[in-house]
Amino acid sequence: MKRTTIKDVAKAAKVHASTVSRALDPNSKHPISKEVAERVRAIAKKLGFRANAAGYSLKTSKSRLIGVIVPDITDPVFPPIIRGLEAGLEKQGYAALLANTDGNARRERDLVEIMQARGVDGLLLASVTYKGDLIKSAGLQDMPVVTIARHTDNPAVACVVHDEEEGFRRLLNHLASLGHRSIVSIAGPQDLSTGRNRHLAFQRFAKHLKLEAGPTIFAMAFNEQEGERCAEELLTEGAKFTAVVCANDRLAIGAIAAFKRHGMKCPEDVSVTGFNDMPMLERLVPPLTTVRIQQYRLGYEAAELVLELIGQEPKDRQGREIRLPIELVVRQSTGIPARRSS
Amino acid sequence: MKRTTIKDVAKAAKVHASTVSRALDPNSKHPISKEVAERVRAIAKKLGFRANAAGYSLKTSKSRLIGVIVPDITDPVFPPIIRGLEAGLEKQGYAALLANTDGNARRERDLVEIMQARGVDGLLLASVTYKGDLIKSAGLQDMPVVTIARHTDNPAVACVVHDEEEGFRRLLNHLASLGHRSIVSIAGPQDLSTGRNRHLAFQRFAKHLKLEAGPTIFAMAFNEQEGERCAEELLTEGAKFTAVVCANDRLAIGAIAAFKRHGMKCPEDVSVTGFNDMPMLERLVPPLTTVRIQQYRLGYEAAELVLELIGQEPKDRQGREIRLPIELVVRQSTGIPARRSS
Repeated sequence: MKRTTIKDVAKAAKVHASTVSRALDPNSKHPISKEVAERVRAIAKKLGFRANAAGYSLKTSKSRLIGVIVPDITDPVFPPIIRGLEAGLEKQGYAALLANTDGNARRERDLVEIMQARGVDGLLLASVTYKGDLIKSAGLQDMPVVTIARHTDNPAVACVVHDEEEGFRRLLNHLASLGHRSIVSIAGPQDLSTGRNRHLAFQRFAKHLKLEAGPTIFAMAFNEQEGERCAEELLTEGAKFTAVVCANDRLAIGAIAAFKRHGMKCPEDVSVTGFNDMPMLERLVPPLTTVRIQQYRLGYEAAELVLELIGQEPKDRQGREIRLPIELVVRQSTGIPARRSS
Repeated sequence: MKRTTIKDVAKAAKVHASTVSRALDPNSKHPISKEVAERVRAIAKKLGFRANAAGYSLKTSKSRLIGVIVPDITDPVFPPIIRGLEAGLEKQGYAALLANTDGNARRERDLVEIMQARGVDGLLLASVTYKGDLIKSAGLQDMPVVTIARHTDNPAVACVVHDEEEGFRRLLNHLASLGHRSIVSIAGPQDLSTGRNRHLAFQRFAKHLKLEAGPTIFAMAFNEQEGERCAEELLTEGAKFTAVVCANDRLAIGAIAAFKRHGMKCPEDVSVTGFNDMPMLERLVPPLTTVRIQQYRLGYEAAELVLELIGQEPKDRQGREIRLPIELVVRQSTGIPARRSS
């Protein structure tokens, strides 16, 4: 069966092929009369004409694809972000090419190349390190790039992030208001802005509240296994504490499991907090006190921002940052401190 | 900065442009000598030439994109499937365009049209209903389509699924071996093959084991809220049972929460089982007994299958089905029945 072409539609509608293109392109910047547009669309539909995105993309040199690179979508923090960015892209006729790095810098670089070769119009990167070496070296100067959930040390790279500092301020105020004075921290990887910002915020507010902040243990990854290992290390070091502030929910879940193995109940013997408010936390025992971020909105705003950047000259793209507000969610993993410091 | 074209590379390498294409296309079916290929690749790299996927796709009429439609990637069963299919597609130079339907048939239809307009070479559908109305009516006869995790009533549509029947056989044998005789079921939506197959398997093996199978309550969706509602309905009906077999993990998690609110402990007062073995189950209280499916492998094999179908005539695509084995995972949500039937 021969495919209906734009020429077939033009002939049937008795208009020029370029008029058909304009009539069928929702983003055309060359408006034609509404009456002509409707007539062409009706004929195109009748003939079963289907716009060919590949053909279209050669003409405009736009693929209408955005590359999206995340560390690992099986981490429950990412799927709602991806839902949000898909919605934001789709609204303007764009789609996402999604890929995972597993935190591997070499793979991240390869993926950026693959996506450039596919002609993506922009990139959304949830995989960047704070040093942002990838963006410096991968020839992304002319490509609209927005980092999501993380940022780099280069303020010229656009980002959509959360107000992590405010999150830690509220967590520490909450613990202090319960009466905790001896608080330790399980921090995230320091090569990621999330790990770094949360660690700095912990130090700042612990000092501000004049807490007896004990040692900080650094996790090598934001997952449950590392949370368990870091909690074990705290106990091995003989640190004194009544509360542990963890850099994300998965570290907190691991820490609670390790404490439980040592006969320490949460929150009776130790209060533990997370960050992100990933799904299912309310169904764990105990339900986790945490900071809720707006994952869907993060994705949606990042999509809008990258599409906005596509229409701009590289020099005008400088320094765009969207910082979303957070919310403290108090559940049952925090309580008044045990009389004895454990 | 002018983009390096295929002609620039051809000129520098002193070969015809088509030779450059062949040298740079890993899937070219027109082999050229290894020596020429290597020389062209070296020159292309030196000149910073990047293959343009859009240009390539017009020549071969292949976009090297596969449309992937899922109900909702925030359901934890889907991310590992997507990791698997990305790996399978990437190995052959393909990428996935991912979209979500939220179970909305109208939206599913719109997404298929959007993806066809983008020129996808095939579709992986995790969103289909058992009746498969979409595939019948959306003009997909000539498009390679593989349904994933679900199948339709049309045996001609290729699918990659799990051996759900064997899963239910093992679950019921496990419960019977613990001494359960009064077993009820919270079944999934009957318009989906997963809900339907699991319900039929429950009935078959309950009969085979001569269990006193009580009423079946039908959930309208595979989620925790419906699990809670169905468990409440079981209690309202005054059904007698010592075990509840749920059509997936999320229904089981909801059911356990509802029983808990009524003072019924799991597994002391009632044993509950799930299906899928989604992440985090081992961290719930109690950890859930379930059937483990192979999500990553499901995605990977579906990707390989759809790429295989692309190379075939529509008439040769008939009836491909891959059915993956499952595994019973016994945790602490099942135990010996309470002496009193609750």
